[in-house]
Amino acid sequence: MDDVNHQVRLAARPVGLPQPSDWEHTEEPVEEPGDGEVLVRVKYLSLDPAMRGWMNDARSYVPPVGIGEVMRAGGCGEVVASQHPKFSPGDHVTGITGIQEHAVLSGDAVIKVDPDLAPLPVYLGTLGMPGMTAYFGLLDIGKPTEGDTVVVSGAAGAVGSVVGQIAKIKGCRAVGIAGGEEKCRHIVEELGFDAAIDYKSENVHQALRRHCPDGIDVYFDNVGGEILDAALANLARGARIPLCGAISQYNATDGMRGPSNYMSLLVNRASMTGFLVFDFAARYAEAAAEMAGWMREGRLRSFEDVAAGGVQAFPETLLRLFRGENLGKLVLEVDPG
Amino acid sequence: MDDVNHQVRLAARPVGLPQPSDWEHTEEPVEEPGDGEVLVRVKYLSLDPAMRGWMNDARSYVPPVGIGEVMRAGGCGEVVASQHPKFSPGDHVTGITGIQEHAVLSGDAVIKVDPDLAPLPVYLGTLGMPGMTAYFGLLDIGKPTEGDTVVVSGAAGAVGSVVGQIAKIKGCRAVGIAGGEEKCRHIVEELGFDAAIDYKSENVHQALRRHCPDGIDVYFDNVGGEILDAALANLARGARIPLCGAISQYNATDGMRGPSNYMSLLVNRASMTGFLVFDFAARYAEAAAEMAGWMREGRLRSFEDVAAGGVQAFPETLLRLFRGENLGKLVLEVDPG
Repeated sequence: MDDVNHQVRLAARPVGLPQPSDWEHTEEPVEEPGDGEVLVRVKYLSLDPAMRGWMNDARSYVPPVGIGEVMRAGGCGEVVASQHPKFSPGDHVTGITGIQEHAVLSGDAVIKVDPDLAPLPVYLGTLGMPGMTAYFGLLDIGKPTEGDTVVVSGAAGAVGSVVGQIAKIKGCRAVGIAGGEEKCRHIVEELGFDAAIDYKSENVHQALRRHCPDGIDVYFDNVGGEILDAALANLARGARIPLCGAISQYNATDGMRGPSNYMSLLVNRASMTGFLVFDFAARYAEAAAEMAGWMREGRLRSFEDVAAGGVQAFPETLLRLFRGENLGKLVLEVDPG
Repeated sequence: MDDVNHQVRLAARPVGLPQPSDWEHTEEPVEEPGDGEVLVRVKYLSLDPAMRGWMNDARSYVPPVGIGEVMRAGGCGEVVASQHPKFSPGDHVTGITGIQEHAVLSGDAVIKVDPDLAPLPVYLGTLGMPGMTAYFGLLDIGKPTEGDTVVVSGAAGAVGSVVGQIAKIKGCRAVGIAGGEEKCRHIVEELGFDAAIDYKSENVHQALRRHCPDGIDVYFDNVGGEILDAALANLARGARIPLCGAISQYNATDGMRGPSNYMSLLVNRASMTGFLVFDFAARYAEAAAEMAGWMREGRLRSFEDVAAGGVQAFPETLLRLFRGENLGKLVLEVDPG
């Protein structure tokens, strides 16, 4: 073990979009695993909108990343040393590796994955947290029934793309909101959505009215802001809004924008419900098995946007999420070999 | 039938608080009931925050009151002529009488009430729509369980005062938010709330934190605005927010203020659900019977704020709601004799 472990640590709490000066690049000797631990050589890192929230010094569902700590991130890689009976060198696992090339993790906190069943980045996307988020958020919180109109924002992203496809599998009409022609074409032509709305070139409120003449039964919200307001203005009676994220607001420096049309919930006897995928951990295996089945049948397609450059490229690559530049799950390649 | 029927009609759509010029006072001969109808001499009229919404030209759960129409209002009074087999002169009924002294109504659209069981104004309050709203909104939407902390805004009003008392009956801790010392004393000393927060003199966010150290399990919202944001910031995990109204926003001229803390729903796996009492119509009788029982047992107290002046006083009396001047159900006395 004489490798150097390159890491990215949080240097300062960002105001607005994270700046290069908010990060510190460090290197350390690779550690040996202790009892019950495994040493993982990281191959791919998951880049998620939620990371922006973890950087704030605010009470939330997880503690903030501390200043000077390795940035929190999900990752997948290969076990290179193990002091845990369930794992051997050569196994592939996913876990919270952090933005670094090597991670020593508790064997109880990682999950074995099979790179022959699906490419590793899929375990960070459709068969990972984003896929689980889409599955439980849509099915358990959104509770769609056949014939419902399901609208999802961030529809070309890691979560939204799966939401729309599961909606179709369940016999719903799926309408996606995404930014730009390419994404809109992608979700209709490659993912099978019934319609796409380009929020960069269309009036979302009017487009929703046109594409959802009977109103929206389920609006899966990844973005917040004006698009949430447009969806609220177009609800069907009894609509459900699973609240998954608000990426449009994460870098706001003048405070969060609340949905001014929220009283539409009253008029339409509708609900808006927050959820966190971690609460469904006991059912991940069940969901992953069902989604893997849909993938085999060709009914669920997984797209990953794999960025190169290793951990050094993390600060710049993360910004692609907030610029809406990724198509599918944004993954940073660290060392695929 | 040679009486004159004095009426108040909507003359213009208000911008902000309704002005005297938004109303027209008219008089007409009293009509005779047609087949299946009853003629009601109105004794009391119900004044409700929802009236402000009905005056806007906006799609909602009921059509707006048309310009030139008698203002919509619930009322109760005595049948003076009947062409409906279920009703005889001398019967007392409630129904949508409108702001007028006499109303011809379909016998199928009025409900018989017994003035010997409870004074007539109670049928416009605790045993009427506000009471039903409190009962179904709290129990069916809020779903409190014993030991929960229930917070209600507009706590000294027609709905809020009943919400807090039912919460106590169900074994919850009840915290009320109201404006002014008198109301706060009233809800604690006369209605049995555990605590009161005076939003006019206290920082509601800090007071909620103090009175709800384990967070809010149910927040019954009548007001919206800053108080909704303060409640959102103090939710317990899994909290429910029945959305009943937003009186702080009804007269806003610069657009509705959305709850900027709404992402607390996500962090706390909480939900905000709109409801309309009319959807529970099939269960009104059941609820009224249970609440009348609680009133007999002295566990539920009903307060009505009865304003004098007849229909002519309606425009000015309505404003008392938006100034927060009423204690309990605001009722306008028309002709109690």
